[in-house]
This record gives sequence, C-alpha cells and structure tokens, in this order.
Amino acid sequence: MKPEAHRLTLETYPLTHTVPSRFQDLDPLGHINNVAIGAFYEEGRGNLNRKAFSLDLRKAHGMRMVIADVHIAYLDEAFYPSDLVVGSGILRIGGSSYTIAQGLFQDGRCIGTSEAVLVNTDGQKPAPIPEEGRKSLTALMIKTA
Amino acid sequence: MKPEAHRLTLETYPLTHTVPSRFQDLDPLGHINNVAIGAFYEEGRGNLNRKAFSLDLRKAHGMRMVIADVHIAYLDEAFYPSDLVVGSGILRIGGSSYTIAQGLFQDGRCIGTSEAVLVNTDGQKPAPIPEEGRKSLTALMIKTA
Amino acid sequence: MKPEAHRLTLETYPLTHTVPSRFQDLDPLGHINNVAIGAFYEEGRGNLNRKAFSLDLRKAHGMRMVIADVHIAYLDEAFYPSDLVVGSGILRIGGSSYTIAQGLFQDGRCIGTSEAVLVNTDGQKPAPIPEEGRKSLTALMIKTA
Amino acid sequence: MKPEAHRLTLETYPLTHTVPSRFQDLDPLGHINNVAIGAFYEEGRGNLNRKAFSLDLRKAHGMRMVIADVHIAYLDEAFYPSDLVVGSGILRIGGSSYTIAQGLFQDGRCIGTSEAVLVNTDGQKPAPIPEEGRKSLTALMIKTA
Repeated sequence: MKPEAHRLTLETYPLTHTVPSRFQDLDPLGHINNVAIGAFYEEGRGNLNRKAFSLDLRKAHGMRMVIADVHIAYLDEAFYPSDLVVGSGILRIGGSSYTIAQGLFQDGRCIGTSEAVLVNTDGQKPAPIPEEGRKSLTALMIKTA
Repeated sequence: MKPEAHRLTLETYPLTHTVPSRFQDLDPLGHINNVAIGAFYEEGRGNLNRKAFSLDLRKAHGMRMVIADVHIAYLDEAFYPSDLVVGSGILRIGGSSYTIAQGLFQDGRCIGTSEAVLVNTDGQKPAPIPEEGRKSLTALMIKTA
Repeated sequence: MKPEAHRLTLETYPLTHTVPSRFQDLDPLGHINNVAIGAFYEEGRGNLNRKAFSLDLRKAHGMRMVIADVHIAYLDEAFYPSDLVVGSGILRIGGSSYTIAQGLFQDGRCIGTSEAVLVNTDGQKPAPIPEEGRKSLTALMIKTA
Repeated sequence: MKPEAHRLTLETYPLTHTVPSRFQDLDPLGHINNVAIGAFYEEGRGNLNRKAFSLDLRKAHGMRMVIADVHIAYLDEAFYPSDLVVGSGILRIGGSSYTIAQGLFQDGRCIGTSEAVLVNTDGQKPAPIPEEGRKSLTALMIKTA
C-alpha cells in the first residue's frame, strides 16, 4: 500500500495545480482534516479533465465523467494557511475508464498520494473515450522512470 | 444587535429540526466553526420551505426561492458529537419575500440566532408568493409574546 | 477493485450509524458530492472508535489514532434529504494498526464501500494497541461468511 | 438592508485577498452555495487579522478573537472555477470589539457584502484591544467617501 518512490516527487506529474488551504479545512488536531484533503485532489482532477477534454468535445459526445474509485495514502500532515500543490497525471487508459495518479505537496513535502478511477459515460452508461480525448490523456501520462 | 429574550427559547419556534454535528464541523479551537454553523440554519430553512410549499405548489408556480440576506448572532460555543436543534419560524411576510427567524440549540443552551430574507422568484425575477404558500407561512409565524 | 458481495449488505457490519445528508453535500449534478461522501464514512469511523476505546483507556495510554490510508468504491448515487446509514466493522487488527471496513446505504441501496487503515500513536509515533482495545476491536470484526 | 453604494466597489477596501472557488462550493443550482460563500469572507477576515496583529502581539497579550455577529447581503451569483476576490477593511473600533466590512467580487461583479463583529478575548472574557493592534486596525479603515 506504500506508494512507489517516484510518486513522491512533484516532477513525476505533468500537471500541477495550486490550491490555497482554508481555515475551514482544519480540524481540532490543528492540521488539515482527512476528508478535507479529498477536495484538493478533486480540484487537481477537475483541472486535468478541463485540460484533456475541451467543452466542444464534451458536448459533441455528451461526455459526463463519474468517479468509480478513489484511494488516498496519507503520508504527512498539512497545515494552514500555506498553499497545497497537486500534481496530476494519467496512470492507465482503458476503453471507457482512465486512472488519474496524484501527489499532494506543501512547502516541498509530499503530504500524500491518490489514485482515482474515472468512467466516461453518456449520462447513463459507460461510453468509449473519444479518440481526441484519448490522445489528450496519453499526452498526460505520468513519468514512471 | 442583541437578540430579544423570546428568541433564545426553543418554544418560540413552531418548527424544530435536529441536525447531528459532524467531526468536519470542528475547527482548531475545538468548537464548531462559525461558517459551519451556517449549515445548521440552512437545514432548518430547507425543512421549513419543504413544509410550507408542497412540490405541486412549487411546480405549478415555477417557484424558486433565493436567499437575499442572512444575519447570525453567535451567543455560545457548540461542540461535537452532540446534536444541534434548529428552531425555525416566520418573522415577516412581504409580497414576494419573507423572513425566517431561527434559534440554534445544543443540550438546552441557545448557541445563536439567525434571520434570513428569502425571495420567491420565477427562476429569473421576484414573483408574488402564491396565496396557498402565504397561508402556510402565516401558520408558521413565531410566537412573540 | 470490485467489493465482495457480502460487503454490500448492511447485516455484514456489527455497527450502524445514521447520518442525515445536508443540502451542502450536494453538487451541481444533483447528487451527493464524492468528497462529501467521505464525511459519512468519517462519522462511522468516529462512532466505532468511541465504542472501541473508552475515554479512560485513551487517556491512560495517550492514544491518538491517525489515518494512514483510505479507499472508497463508489457504487451508486446518494441524494438529499434522505439519511445515510453507515455500517462499520473491523477487517484486520495488526500490532499498532487496524483496518475498518464500511458500507454506505441509502433507502436500502448500497451506495459504496470503504476500507481505512488507522494507526494508533502516542501522539508522535506508532504505539501498540492496548490489550483492552484489542479485545474491543476483535468483538467488532465484520461477518465474512 | 441594501448596502451603501461605496461598499460595492473593490477600491473601498484597503485589503484584497484572492480565494479560488472549489467544485465543492457549488450547489445543485450550479452556483456557489450560500453557506459556502461564508468561507470566502472568513478567509478575508483571517488575512486581515494576520496583518493587523503580529504573532508576537497575540502571544504577549494572549489575544484570541471570537466572532459575535455576521451579516451577509447576497447580491449576485458566483460561479466555478473563477477566483473570488475579497475586499476587507475596518468599519468601527470599540474597546474590545471591532467590525470588519467586506465586499466579495468575481470577474469585476460585486457578489455581496458582509459585516462581522469580532471581540478580542483573553481566551475567557472580552479584553481591551492592545494599543499597537488598535493602531493597525485604524490604518485599515475602509474609505467611506
């Protein structure tokens, strides 16, 4: 369950996205709450999806991505009010689904890693990822070596 | 700005609604965060609106309520994991707007009070509150004496 | 990654905990947001921890549980304002860590499952789970057959 | 209850603070939720307090600010994923309390205004604002003409 070493380096991820922490993210232990951490990964995924699939592409294919599975490894505490930096990239591309790999960083420390499986749907059921989107995802594969 | 004495008593409010606190509501001071407190009042208002305006009435008139103004007085700290009890009633009924008065209670203590102005719209602009809805709101006026 | 069949039944879990949904949990797709779903599992884990470890036991050993790893499978949509019911139990007990298995249900449907690894610490570093706590966790093992 | 005209202009406020919106802030109506809006004002107040009261000053006097009263006027909808800009300044300085006036802006539009009464305490009861802090607050008064 321990993440591989390359996952702990920001350089691994083709996309980075900065999200300021909020006072509301804190819990009584004085660090950012475990559930609140989920929102930082979500912002990174949204940023990746906006970059990979243009609004035109989404509309043309009626694309609607749903999340099927999320795993988060908690490696270190995160604090307020520093920014968090989310690194995101693609780990795997299937027929209608793809896996986003992410690392979360604060002040140079790796706070945690996450993998999320997203499924492209037509709003009702799984649908193949359009060729143009597949190319975009391929260009965003994480560096594994 | 200090609330009137009758506003600090749960009996003042014709509707009560119980909302459990969540660990996520806490902040580093160990009490429920000021912004998170807003969600308890919101649940109380939603409950009042569902009771005052049936789904049929809403659909028939294309009713969509928007919030124009919220005031919250913070009187005491609230903790986890006890429930919070929201008392809600109507303070004022206008042509297209109405004011909800609320009190928030935990373990018998009054945590705070709130007043919120809601405006009925047709989805675009203010619209008169339908007669049937006006009757429902009138039946939910808070007791002031 | 697909959960085993017995994990989709509320009867599998020795503890159940009911958490009302909140309007704030909703996202623009009209269902409860993926990150917000994390809070329901968190409430279930807090409930289990309060049942397994008395305040006296925690104080005597300076116990502080930290979360190391969370996995969530999203199986169906959840809506507002219905309650969510979290089923929780123990999947595995190690020296200083233990795994909580959970199922999330709404109106009889299984919305998803989760596994979370918690580590007992003395506030600084991992510490053995006290014998009394180990007994409590053992009594809360999920039913696997 | 309608805010004065000068409150709708960012130039009125001596401090500005940018807070990105999050997907989680959205509600089923597709705009940023009314309660979530409270978090943007909170970030602006935190920023003002950090600028007005140094950590040394806070420690020397055991200062702990608590919120007594918040008013929010909702003037327009806010959307995702644009940033929100919070303008903050001081409206009034009392013996132990002070009022922060704020305006919230997105893409040049004023989304709303807020006033919050904060009370300086020694952790238990109201305490006079130290002279050095009083000077800092005075330097942050909003422009009213």
